[in-house]
Amino acid sequence: MKFSVLVEVRLHPGIADPQGATIERALPALGFSEVAGVRVGKAIRFVIDAADEPAARAEAEDVAQRLLANPVIEETAVTVLGPPSVDGSDGAGG
Amino acid sequence: MKFSVLVEVRLHPGIADPQGATIERALPALGFSEVAGVRVGKAIRFVIDAADEPAARAEAEDVAQRLLANPVIEETAVTVLGPPSVDGSDGAGG
Repeated sequence: MKFSVLVEVRLHPGIADPQGATIERALPALGFSEVAGVRVGKAIRFVIDAADEPAARAEAEDVAQRLLANPVIEETAVTVLGPPSVDGSDGAGG
Repeated sequence: MKFSVLVEVRLHPGIADPQGATIERALPALGFSEVAGVRVGKAIRFVIDAADEPAARAEAEDVAQRLLANPVIEETAVTVLGPPSVDGSDGAGG
């Protein structure tokens, strides 16, 4: 059974995020003065073939920890989204 | 009122994703043969100060479209997550 998975990789709190800081500095010039605390991470989607939802989650967390994140500076959050959309081979929800 | 927001920026379906393809090629060597369709995007979190949830969503979608994504090749998905966590100034949920 196929499951669409979303892995969010984000910097641990306290790790400097120059990319986020740059976005934040650019916002007032565009008229957005109400935005703060910008942090930039990665959103990785894939489709996993597993027996059931817990098995899919376990394998996705293993992939996230071993391949997608640097655990020294990054943490991961895995969301199993259910079956991939009918049209897409990429599991990105069309 | 403050709202924590997550913006996912991902490539449109059909746009080549060499970063995702590289991850996918690396997976079998690590023992993950059940993973396919890897797509890499960005996950951007920030805190927005707005009157209510619809206002926060509208401004976040404006930020996402105008500053965070290249609409020629990318699409955005905005999720308003509610009030930021107590400890974090970054809204990243600690």
